[in-house]
Amino acid sequence: MPRSVRRVLLGAPIATARSEHEKVGALGGLTIFAADAMSSVAYGPEEVVLVLALAGTAGLNYALPICIALGVLIWIVATSYRQTVVEYPSGGGAYVVARENLSPLASHIAGGALLTDYVLTVSVSVSAGIAAITSAWPALYDYRVDIAVACVVMIALVNLRGVRESAAAFALPVYGFVACAFLVIIVGLYRMWTGSITPSEQTQAAQGLVPLQGVGLFLILRAFSSGCASLTGLEAVANGVQAFREPRGVRAASVMVLMATVLSATVLGVGLLIHGLHIAPIPEITVLSQIGEKVFGRGFMYFLLQIETMLILVFAANTSFSDFPRLSAFMARDGYMPRQMANLGDRLVYQNGIVVLSALACVLIIIFKGEVSSLIPLYAVGVFTAFTISQTGMVIHWVRKQGPHWHHKVAVNGLGAVATGVVLIVIAVTKFALGAWIVCLLIPMLVLAFRAIGRHYSHVAARLSLENAKEVAPIKNLNLLLVGGMHRGTLQALEYARALGGPVRAVHVETGGEELPRIRRMWTDWETDIRLEILPAPFRNVTEPLVDYIQQVKAEEGFDVVTVILPEFVVDNWWQSLLHNHSALWLQFLLSRIPGVAVLNMRYKL
Amino acid sequence: MPRSVRRVLLGAPIATARSEHEKVGALGGLTIFAADAMSSVAYGPEEVVLVLALAGTAGLNYALPICIALGVLIWIVATSYRQTVVEYPSGGGAYVVARENLSPLASHIAGGALLTDYVLTVSVSVSAGIAAITSAWPALYDYRVDIAVACVVMIALVNLRGVRESAAAFALPVYGFVACAFLVIIVGLYRMWTGSITPSEQTQAAQGLVPLQGVGLFLILRAFSSGCASLTGLEAVANGVQAFREPRGVRAASVMVLMATVLSATVLGVGLLIHGLHIAPIPEITVLSQIGEKVFGRGFMYFLLQIETMLILVFAANTSFSDFPRLSAFMARDGYMPRQMANLGDRLVYQNGIVVLSALACVLIIIFKGEVSSLIPLYAVGVFTAFTISQTGMVIHWVRKQGPHWHHKVAVNGLGAVATGVVLIVIAVTKFALGAWIVCLLIPMLVLAFRAIGRHYSHVAARLSLENAKEVAPIKNLNLLLVGGMHRGTLQALEYARALGGPVRAVHVETGGEELPRIRRMWTDWETDIRLEILPAPFRNVTEPLVDYIQQVKAEEGFDVVTVILPEFVVDNWWQSLLHNHSALWLQFLLSRIPGVAVLNMRYKL
Repeated sequence: MPRSVRRVLLGAPIATARSEHEKVGALGGLTIFAADAMSSVAYGPEEVVLVLALAGTAGLNYALPICIALGVLIWIVATSYRQTVVEYPSGGGAYVVARENLSPLASHIAGGALLTDYVLTVSVSVSAGIAAITSAWPALYDYRVDIAVACVVMIALVNLRGVRESAAAFALPVYGFVACAFLVIIVGLYRMWTGSITPSEQTQAAQGLVPLQGVGLFLILRAFSSGCASLTGLEAVANGVQAFREPRGVRAASVMVLMATVLSATVLGVGLLIHGLHIAPIPEITVLSQIGEKVFGRGFMYFLLQIETMLILVFAANTSFSDFPRLSAFMARDGYMPRQMANLGDRLVYQNGIVVLSALACVLIIIFKGEVSSLIPLYAVGVFTAFTISQTGMVIHWVRKQGPHWHHKVAVNGLGAVATGVVLIVIAVTKFALGAWIVCLLIPMLVLAFRAIGRHYSHVAARLSLENAKEVAPIKNLNLLLVGGMHRGTLQALEYARALGGPVRAVHVETGGEELPRIRRMWTDWETDIRLEILPAPFRNVTEPLVDYIQQVKAEEGFDVVTVILPEFVVDNWWQSLLHNHSALWLQFLLSRIPGVAVLNMRYKL
Repeated sequence: MPRSVRRVLLGAPIATARSEHEKVGALGGLTIFAADAMSSVAYGPEEVVLVLALAGTAGLNYALPICIALGVLIWIVATSYRQTVVEYPSGGGAYVVARENLSPLASHIAGGALLTDYVLTVSVSVSAGIAAITSAWPALYDYRVDIAVACVVMIALVNLRGVRESAAAFALPVYGFVACAFLVIIVGLYRMWTGSITPSEQTQAAQGLVPLQGVGLFLILRAFSSGCASLTGLEAVANGVQAFREPRGVRAASVMVLMATVLSATVLGVGLLIHGLHIAPIPEITVLSQIGEKVFGRGFMYFLLQIETMLILVFAANTSFSDFPRLSAFMARDGYMPRQMANLGDRLVYQNGIVVLSALACVLIIIFKGEVSSLIPLYAVGVFTAFTISQTGMVIHWVRKQGPHWHHKVAVNGLGAVATGVVLIVIAVTKFALGAWIVCLLIPMLVLAFRAIGRHYSHVAARLSLENAKEVAPIKNLNLLLVGGMHRGTLQALEYARALGGPVRAVHVETGGEELPRIRRMWTDWETDIRLEILPAPFRNVTEPLVDYIQQVKAEEGFDVVTVILPEFVVDNWWQSLLHNHSALWLQFLLSRIPGVAVLNMRYKL
């Protein structure tokens, strides 16, 4: 029954041999990896405006310059990463680059930073997507947390089915959103140029904004930091090169360039519209919703824009569903994450990673009540840490490897490293008190955990290694059959115990029923070879006398292992099983904790 | 750790041999069994008044006659039961009397009725106890469900510690309440007689009650039915004769008489006060609270009465905690309830019964939001069913047994049977639509369940019986060692498998790692006797190829049983165990469902 539910939800198992077929081309890759980067347009500029508005209309004048700065930064990072994907076609995420070129510690920091940010990407994207919808239909605002959690579960299910099907499912929202965004920018700029729209009353009302503070450098930097959320997702391609068809590096690099072009153009366009239309924040209405309403009016195109925004954002979370499990599996194979994260499920996906990611994201959404602005301060610290480490690693890589044009390559990655490093410091400082401290605390804790896990696995590997191993001395084993009473099942169990071959003894633990004389009598009637020991249990607890007896046998008769045979009666259906003691299960649990005891579960049906 | 928590909460285990010491004398028995009967004074008369008030002040005039009728009924039932306890000193509950003298069906009806009523006793008593407190401190009214559930859990814990300690714990509330109740009646009647209290303004206001209906026979009978809740608990002694020290019957009979005397006197006294003081229902204030306030004023004695009422009611639930587990154990030993209900725990109590009872009672409290008036219609149907069956059974008993004075004994039990039978019909008819239908539906369902369980156990017993059993043919067994990889643990497992004695084979399921050539090579290095089979698993699922192989081996090589040896690596602590696959556990679960497969769990530590 659970298996057939699983089949319907996730599809039939896929054979290991088919794994190459599940890879994507450049267009498929764009679909999967672009959603995250593209979608951040929906909240990046918005957060810039929200921060600047603290200084009133004077602050809002800085929105356009910040958007231009963001556009430039996007190009720097993308150019820098282009070199990485070509050089690391088997996956060149910050973790791998740091591991190859810097130190294990740097790779652990990068890994922890990225994993943190992947979880945040899911929470932020889904929350922002729901915000797009509640801007258009405010009645849904109160249900935002429930809707968001349902979305996360839905994305998890799609991903548990496998990667190829994701690309197909996610094509419409990604390209639809890009088309809508370009349309709103082009139409908006054209109408502004022709003068057919001007700042309306609503916005003029917003211009009466009370400045809570003056326009200072810190405020501008904080606004810029918030806007940096737009850059999250750029690194996704580098981490996921593995998902491309050959030649992976070339396909990934072209996706990188395409993404950067579209993304920076969109950020700039939105910046121009915010500037030209004098957009100011309105509670519970997103900036993109305001722009759409101004440009298109509250008609079909406006609602289409909102729905597309929601779709791309909700589906943007999908990028993390490709990357989080993949990075976890990388790290698990290196021995720094629980090994289960590297298990390929029967649909050829890292199902444990998908489940862990969705659970963590749902927790964040619930804790922060699905509010994007509460989540944003935690965001981007991780990704800029990873950017900086990764680009620094690339600089070291070129210096060591040299080869053609290496000076030029060092310069490109060096610029990337410096730029992202500076931005990282700016983000950490300006958003520390607002929530970035959580991430600044979490990443070192994750690093400690990775190292503890790594130590454990190498310790176990060393202990298990066959190098210098000696032959194991022969083991002396006693088979001990636990007899509850005398019945046909006992006869079967005795015959089975005999069939095992080694020495056999039977024990009955006397818990105070009136069975004892009957058992003794019937034993002599039915069994001659095997001796029956009676163990008194004054406290009606089977385990203690049994364990005492086992210890005694091992000490006095020199057995290394005692194999306890627990016969269990199999009933026909679930309700009948409620009518029988499950003492075998409980005994097995307790006995398995005792060294030198093996437990044999023998089920008989009559 | 869980064991030490258990010790602190429940105490150290008690040896079976000590069981006689846990019995109680007459006074201890009164404490344990009287609480239920006595405490019903707190809600019985109240429910009479609530129903009568539907007909306004005219209706309230019938309160005293109904209380007199209840007092008479108490005496009839008690006299009738006195004969039962003497005749059945090993426990003469309705279930046993019906089993011995009527038919199995009658005993099942009695059993189901009593079990239902025991659960209701806990819910009603605890809810009424909390109502006494919220009458005095209305601020607690909103927390009544939480407080009630906490009380049930507390009583369950006390009972899980054992019966003797309960008698000690429950002495103060029982005798304290009886003293308070007698005091309020004596002082109240004296002050009424001397004219120092008269119906006050509050009550005169209540006299302006709007009659919703006229005083009809149905209403009076319904009020009487509700009042019959006062009789619940009378049967407790008969069920629990076993808990008394020898001579059980005599001690139990004197407790019966004592209880009936005190109970009927209290009901009559409260009836007189209701009549004399013109008490009418006030929302969220109990009748006993109104009487107390009138007699003593809102001073120390009033609050003491409320607290004592609460204590006896909450502790009255304890009667059911003695009886429900005991009756369940009776029925389990007869094979009509799951056998686990008859397990004596390490504190010499039927712990499963205690746990089941408290869980059901909490569910009822939560469903009915801790409102006594909502629970009352479900109540008393069960207990009067049991009364009627039990007294009818006694009539048959005397007719069959005869002996000295048997005509007189038949008359006493016959009167009891007729009286309780008539009341049962009255209760079922007048309260059917208000909730009694639930119980009228539940009891037959329980009876069906008892019979199904009985059939299952006799079927199993017949199949397991050694009568006409033949010798079991010798079994051919193959030991199959599951090898995950080549390491020191595998060497130990191989040596262990060899020590078992029978034929051994090793299998490795190939799930697509790059381990295969390494395993083959190392196998030939380390092992010569035992053959290694490699099973391909294209869907990365270990179970299916393994099961196929087992079926094949059984079919082709004629093995009756395949014992699968699952080696499992033991780690040092819980977090390390998270870092290892628990595939052994899951495999064991799946394999144990396959006929002819035994699972051997072998844990190794390095």
